[in-house]
Amino acid sequence: MNIKDIARLSGVGVSTVSRVVNNHPDVKKETREHVLNIIKEYNYIPNSSARVLKQISTKNIGILIKGIFNPFLSEMVSIISKKIQFEGYTMLLQHTEVEEDDIESTLRFIKERKLQGVICLGGKFNDIQEDTFKHIDVPIILTSINLPVAMNNKQHVSIIDINNEEAAYKAVNYLIEKGHKDISIMICDEKEAASLERYKGYCRALEESNIPFDKENVLKGHYLMEKAYEETIKLLQNKKPTAIFAVSDSMAIGVAKAITDSGLQIGQDISIVGFDGMDIAQYYTPTITTVKQPREEMAKLSADLLFEQLNGNKQSISILLDADLIEGNSCIEI
Amino acid sequence: MNIKDIARLSGVGVSTVSRVVNNHPDVKKETREHVLNIIKEYNYIPNSSARVLKQISTKNIGILIKGIFNPFLSEMVSIISKKIQFEGYTMLLQHTEVEEDDIESTLRFIKERKLQGVICLGGKFNDIQEDTFKHIDVPIILTSINLPVAMNNKQHVSIIDINNEEAAYKAVNYLIEKGHKDISIMICDEKEAASLERYKGYCRALEESNIPFDKENVLKGHYLMEKAYEETIKLLQNKKPTAIFAVSDSMAIGVAKAITDSGLQIGQDISIVGFDGMDIAQYYTPTITTVKQPREEMAKLSADLLFEQLNGNKQSISILLDADLIEGNSCIEI
Repeated sequence: MNIKDIARLSGVGVSTVSRVVNNHPDVKKETREHVLNIIKEYNYIPNSSARVLKQISTKNIGILIKGIFNPFLSEMVSIISKKIQFEGYTMLLQHTEVEEDDIESTLRFIKERKLQGVICLGGKFNDIQEDTFKHIDVPIILTSINLPVAMNNKQHVSIIDINNEEAAYKAVNYLIEKGHKDISIMICDEKEAASLERYKGYCRALEESNIPFDKENVLKGHYLMEKAYEETIKLLQNKKPTAIFAVSDSMAIGVAKAITDSGLQIGQDISIVGFDGMDIAQYYTPTITTVKQPREEMAKLSADLLFEQLNGNKQSISILLDADLIEGNSCIEI
Repeated sequence: MNIKDIARLSGVGVSTVSRVVNNHPDVKKETREHVLNIIKEYNYIPNSSARVLKQISTKNIGILIKGIFNPFLSEMVSIISKKIQFEGYTMLLQHTEVEEDDIESTLRFIKERKLQGVICLGGKFNDIQEDTFKHIDVPIILTSINLPVAMNNKQHVSIIDINNEEAAYKAVNYLIEKGHKDISIMICDEKEAASLERYKGYCRALEESNIPFDKENVLKGHYLMEKAYEETIKLLQNKKPTAIFAVSDSMAIGVAKAITDSGLQIGQDISIVGFDGMDIAQYYTPTITTVKQPREEMAKLSADLLFEQLNGNKQSISILLDADLIEGNSCIEI
């Protein structure tokens, strides 16, 4: 796939494609959009830029963060940025909105900023194909990103994550072992990848203990305190589960407040387990039992791996870290 | 001040200065540092770059955020980024660490990325001089940044903030009106600008009501939940104030937990007022009374002002917005 192919597929001249990829203003809006769509569809990276990546030492490392105000992810940036500075590189930070295509954003980020490496924090990369990053010869680290398939090592793509399914499975089993059978789950929505994996772990735990699945027990809190609060209030008007497992700590706080505001007692009436291990779980009253993600370790590993690969010392790898359950005072035996 | 002056002051040749400002690798580390120090000292912006700023329409808008994992600031980025995208510009996000010089970072950011405008979220700009930004002809918006002096309008610098001193004064007066006289304050440290202003408001409120100042009542929580918790635990081993005013909501949560863990009741034994109006104040049990900063309005105003200035429609201005006290259940009358 070269610039001539894109020109042919777009039905425009090579010079027009060149103007589009170089962000030259002298192209009609419709033409630009059309060409960009073709470029996107074929994952085309201009050859000249691909060559440039090899030649120039820009010392630019990109961090692409999904949702800038995700406290879970943004805490990791600080650790990574220190390592980047220490190595004498410059960190470029960009964030992508929920609705943006993360694969496309990563490709564009690398090309436009001539990055020598990129760490993506969060986001959806499910559509990665065998050859998505084949024109990219800089290391890509996907951190806290759930991928359904093992990556082809030739693609310079490494993955640092926890095993979300397993961690959720353990959290729900913890509740089952305490005698809980009517367990609600507060997920993000049907689409978000990490939330989906945690939901699978919940389903597996119920199934293995022969606890029937009740679809009324599945709530969608969109990772928001407020939404989780509202959904829990609604649920409690219809039924009273003995436990609620929220797949993020912010949602667990919303759940906790809804329980209190419904005149019920956390633990005594309804047990809560959260996910992430954020500070607030520890400083809420009562403290919230939560699945602690090893944020610091994930951040350090990501940065170390990136520089080891930049120095040619390491192959791409996938690492799934353990996430431990931290017991608070939000769960009781029944 | 031109490149020859810098060369003379540094005791090196013009070509060496040129290599330093263009980030050329072929300069000794010590020389580079020495030249950079001179450049910094004299706030030198290479003339050629200054001219470039006027000529090229990069469509790059920079956001410089102090402390990426500051939830108060990062929430605003989302609103600002939508406006930037809507206007057809690209947002470049950089963050600065606590110890970095914010004025220098802003100057470097504008120059290196050929920004057409920049919004700084948080940070310390106290050392701004009459001519700090005189070579910069793109709009600079300082949002949530406390400045002791009004800016010279010729400098294209606008300020969007709340009146921190006044907001804190009102919060402490609220406690005094409820009969409190022994009021502790949890500040960040002696240096952080917003925290300092809020501390001044606290002192003024006490003074006006003839309440003697007790230095044991001043605690430093560094804007951290954990630190605020530890400091409050320590305080309560020596004395029991009837109220604690924390100049951030994260610190208010740390204070709240310390009160509970000391066997005391929030409100009943010790009242709490926070600052910021974060979600957690509303979802804590009990809800925490807090000074709500108009985050959304601050973000929108910053973005609107930037584009009005880019379109040549508006002068630089300073706007101090009101911050309202939102009553929770963490304060009682005594």
